[in-house]
Amino acid sequence: MEFKKISHVKVKPDMKVDELIQQMRYGAGFGARNLAKSVDISCEMIKDNDCTIFLGVAGAMVPGGMRQVIIDLIELDYIDVLICTGATLTHDIIEAYGFQHIHGSAHVDDKILAEKNLNRIYNVLLPNEAYENFEDNIQSILNEIKTEKISANEFLHELGLKLNKDSIITSAAKKGIPIFCPGLLDSILGFQIWMFSQTHNLLIDIFDDQRIMMDIAYDSKKRGALIIGGSVPKHFIALTMQVTSQGLDYAIQITTDRPEPGGVSGASLQEAKSWKKVNPESEYVVDVICDATIALPIILASVETRLKDFKRKRKKFTKYG
Amino acid sequence: MEFKKISHVKVKPDMKVDELIQQMRYGAGFGARNLAKSVDISCEMIKDNDCTIFLGVAGAMVPGGMRQVIIDLIELDYIDVLICTGATLTHDIIEAYGFQHIHGSAHVDDKILAEKNLNRIYNVLLPNEAYENFEDNIQSILNEIKTEKISANEFLHELGLKLNKDSIITSAAKKGIPIFCPGLLDSILGFQIWMFSQTHNLLIDIFDDQRIMMDIAYDSKKRGALIIGGSVPKHFIALTMQVTSQGLDYAIQITTDRPEPGGVSGASLQEAKSWKKVNPESEYVVDVICDATIALPIILASVETRLKDFKRKRKKFTKYG
Amino acid sequence: MEFKKISHVKVKPDMKVDELIQQMRYGAGFGARNLAKSVDISCEMIKDNDCTIFLGVAGAMVPGGMRQVIIDLIELDYIDVLICTGATLTHDIIEAYGFQHIHGSAHVDDKILAEKNLNRIYNVLLPNEAYENFEDNIQSILNEIKTEKISANEFLHELGLKLNKDSIITSAAKKGIPIFCPGLLDSILGFQIWMFSQTHNLLIDIFDDQRIMMDIAYDSKKRGALIIGGSVPKHFIALTMQVTSQGLDYAIQITTDRPEPGGVSGASLQEAKSWKKVNPESEYVVDVICDATIALPIILASVETRLKDFKRKRKKFTKYG
Amino acid sequence: MEFKKISHVKVKPDMKVDELIQQMRYGAGFGARNLAKSVDISCEMIKDNDCTIFLGVAGAMVPGGMRQVIIDLIELDYIDVLICTGATLTHDIIEAYGFQHIHGSAHVDDKILAEKNLNRIYNVLLPNEAYENFEDNIQSILNEIKTEKISANEFLHELGLKLNKDSIITSAAKKGIPIFCPGLLDSILGFQIWMFSQTHNLLIDIFDDQRIMMDIAYDSKKRGALIIGGSVPKHFIALTMQVTSQGLDYAIQITTDRPEPGGVSGASLQEAKSWKKVNPESEYVVDVICDATIALPIILASVETRLKDFKRKRKKFTKYG
Repeated sequence: MEFKKISHVKVKPDMKVDELIQQMRYGAGFGARNLAKSVDISCEMIKDNDCTIFLGVAGAMVPGGMRQVIIDLIELDYIDVLICTGATLTHDIIEAYGFQHIHGSAHVDDKILAEKNLNRIYNVLLPNEAYENFEDNIQSILNEIKTEKISANEFLHELGLKLNKDSIITSAAKKGIPIFCPGLLDSILGFQIWMFSQTHNLLIDIFDDQRIMMDIAYDSKKRGALIIGGSVPKHFIALTMQVTSQGLDYAIQITTDRPEPGGVSGASLQEAKSWKKVNPESEYVVDVICDATIALPIILASVETRLKDFKRKRKKFTKYG
Repeated sequence: MEFKKISHVKVKPDMKVDELIQQMRYGAGFGARNLAKSVDISCEMIKDNDCTIFLGVAGAMVPGGMRQVIIDLIELDYIDVLICTGATLTHDIIEAYGFQHIHGSAHVDDKILAEKNLNRIYNVLLPNEAYENFEDNIQSILNEIKTEKISANEFLHELGLKLNKDSIITSAAKKGIPIFCPGLLDSILGFQIWMFSQTHNLLIDIFDDQRIMMDIAYDSKKRGALIIGGSVPKHFIALTMQVTSQGLDYAIQITTDRPEPGGVSGASLQEAKSWKKVNPESEYVVDVICDATIALPIILASVETRLKDFKRKRKKFTKYG
Repeated sequence: MEFKKISHVKVKPDMKVDELIQQMRYGAGFGARNLAKSVDISCEMIKDNDCTIFLGVAGAMVPGGMRQVIIDLIELDYIDVLICTGATLTHDIIEAYGFQHIHGSAHVDDKILAEKNLNRIYNVLLPNEAYENFEDNIQSILNEIKTEKISANEFLHELGLKLNKDSIITSAAKKGIPIFCPGLLDSILGFQIWMFSQTHNLLIDIFDDQRIMMDIAYDSKKRGALIIGGSVPKHFIALTMQVTSQGLDYAIQITTDRPEPGGVSGASLQEAKSWKKVNPESEYVVDVICDATIALPIILASVETRLKDFKRKRKKFTKYG
Repeated sequence: MEFKKISHVKVKPDMKVDELIQQMRYGAGFGARNLAKSVDISCEMIKDNDCTIFLGVAGAMVPGGMRQVIIDLIELDYIDVLICTGATLTHDIIEAYGFQHIHGSAHVDDKILAEKNLNRIYNVLLPNEAYENFEDNIQSILNEIKTEKISANEFLHELGLKLNKDSIITSAAKKGIPIFCPGLLDSILGFQIWMFSQTHNLLIDIFDDQRIMMDIAYDSKKRGALIIGGSVPKHFIALTMQVTSQGLDYAIQITTDRPEPGGVSGASLQEAKSWKKVNPESEYVVDVICDATIALPIILASVETRLKDFKRKRKKFTKYG
């Protein structure tokens, strides 16, 4: 237990994000302290040469405007492995083709939106035509990926390279960052893959991803994770730690889900210590109970400030060179 | 808008669950009214001969003690299609082999639990030996499933039949209820399947599930869903509705996730109307914001009471006879 | 820590609420177990002759349809002291005069409601005329209360007697149950009292309530609390325990507020042990994380069933005879 | 509805808080957009010469490290009226006397804290001696306030002047900002006042505060509110708007409470439009669903940046000069 006094946050004009976070670290309690602690942990994790960093992304982060933040996490070499939902990749590729999510309102008649073919994600909208367009574009790319049986992560790597547009998937692919999407089927992208496979010899082996994730976990001296939004990405990271008996040495999660009903998305990282999914001895563990669209850019802005003169050497995994 | 008065809930000794729910229907506002409404919708949905009913299960329902409730939903022919997480199947099979989850506390030192090899899920524990045992048992069953390439739902059907023990998976398999697990890889069961596939010719095609789900959606005059806990099962049901342009005519979800941060688990079913994942005109739609371990048994107890003389005819899908 | 197995909830047609709760006690984990535990604690607390029972009520329980449930808690002699918000009394008296809250929808244009003079409380509405009517009625009653300086609880006692209609306040007054409303000013009732005091000699001393609450705490061998919705009632109960160094021996709270942002409403009862507001050694303590309109009637229905042959002897406090 | 595209948040090293907020305004959806919108509304509200600004403070903001932020809101003349909980004033005065809240952990055995006389507020602790000390100090100040019957706000004004230490209450008093504390009784400060009144002629009239709040509302051409944490302060502001038929023209609330269970703290500001507590036509209304220790300093840092060359003229109310 820390016996530091709560020194109270002092803000000022033109304050930098990191200055505010520094103020919050010991100036504030509750969520602000945990947010500030997550920046400390992020920096420790990034500066630790021995640590492989997993980024888990769930929860409509692209519609929420976090696409560039995730791309920057990749481009700055702050992460080594990307685990995301199929929806994240779908939204990402939709935007790569020039369609954008637009601002809407949560206080609206959804029947009227339905008539206007505007799909709502809380206070964000996506015109339905984006999905219609997505089909043509993705089918044409799939034609370029000439393989029969392929593991899902190899497939996503290829997809990112072939897409070759400003996007999360292309950034990750070009960097050679493994992309895992254990729930790939459960997405519009997965649906398009299935469509394609009806008339082509394409068989994606999603189970082979387990082997590669495990190899990565085994090959890492230390493991860290930034987990946004829980769900499958969080679970897959934790599962890999469990089956390899390699607990996370650093762990940050950003969520607003509650722990009490027992679901994995809301489970505290303390709880993960009982499973040894997180190293029970680690102090570099924090739950940030906050909307990720607020917390994530703050964390990155603060980390970039502190590490602007630090160049991380990304972990290389043989397969991807 | 209903212009009924709120007549106030009146309880009495020896009251039946359904009597209480009847009281809540117009006696209460807020969550109680929605819970009561979900019973009405459930009954309408079950009695509608034209309606195919999808059950989505996420969120540690077996550790939470909901295993028998889910089995009963199957055995009573109240559902036609099961979509669940890999963890649900893992927990279910672990218990089928005689291991049980045990009562613990959420106010506990997780380091000590880790030392004692007790894995915590909020206030529930599972001794680690259950997982060790799981490996032996599941590998031996996998040996009995003699197939090379197989779609995931066929595989789970076979697994349920071979397991042949009181369990969700065996009940569903024996009933011929299709079991979809789009995030199967992301589970201990998925891990064991991968292990097995390293030394055996087993290739599970998870993408073929999309075709079967779509066929089911297309073949149904109406569609209804009871969605517990969001996540992949919710998303996969909604996705199927989206790609087949077949909105849900009845929809109930039980969740404690919030809508504001934009994730699919917390998204309101109203929002799903903008996507036409839920029929925009349907009035048979309700969000029950409640711990599913509380809401689900109440709903079933009330529905069983109202429908005790009603025998639903389950939808048959050709493949499963 | 309990080492009981989770035996799984089994529901059946015509099941009683208490049978379901019995099933949940060891059949379920997560929230259902805590809900069931709250029934056990309630029964222990009610049967404990030494225990004075405080009921804290916050959060629009009358609009939510819980008015009769609260009246029953009083009429069954299950509680000894009532602490509530001014809004609870306002809503209660409005309904005593024949106005009722009505069912509405949360998915609605509030501008249109404003035009129609319909005040919304989530999915419940109250026509504005109820408030207009309230003024006339309450002013005429205030005229009957002939006192100058009066403590708030005495005033509310008188108000309940003078109102003399089916209501929470009249039930409590007739039973001689002290009614504390530390935030009385902050309500339409408080506003009407102020209005009255502009032209009459009425001076309500809210601070004298502290003395009476303290006396009650000191005079009780044991203390128990059922706390609905947090806020001022929860805080005032806890405060009284703190200043009298008399921790609660039994404590149940029903809330959906989160603990992480530090507010009192979401604070766990475990936390209250550090303050000794709750007896640190007590095992009769539980947080029920649930909409109170769901949890409260369930608890009462179950308690009434178990205690139908038990007649509790209510604690008498000299002043009220 | 805004038809702007979501342009994605771009962070960079040394970024200022306001630059990030500018990025979030149209770069992000979900909570980040609402947070950014709250800064726009704050600035509009502050720059509007016709607007009287109410600040509502609930929820352990002093233990959470927000004391200086609140003081700055006062010192910068950004607010005209302060409505807070009794706990806020208690914590504030405790710190004025040199006691400080300290950093703790939420994952801790509260029995052990109880033994060590450390009172916990989520992850913050306050040694019990602070309360013991508080008694001596406050009683000695109360002796200096020579009045018999006094309205609560006059009393708090006097208390702030007599305390005369760096604190919220002293800042507000010196500035002549009315301080309303409708739940004053329900606090350790209220308890001390009661203690004092047992041996002295002190009678605090809390109801008279209503008149002054109403006068302020009536005397204001426009009204705005920044509401932190709901509860009594939120309700009292809204109540004043209701009884004076003067809706808020600007309204921001920061909360993590949910709307569905019907409590006032979680109620959306949209809902307040149906009551006309918020002007139904106003677009300057936003709910920030976030831990206030995170959102509040961000908002102030951003507002201070934008308004560094703007000097607001605080509203003067006759009584306080």
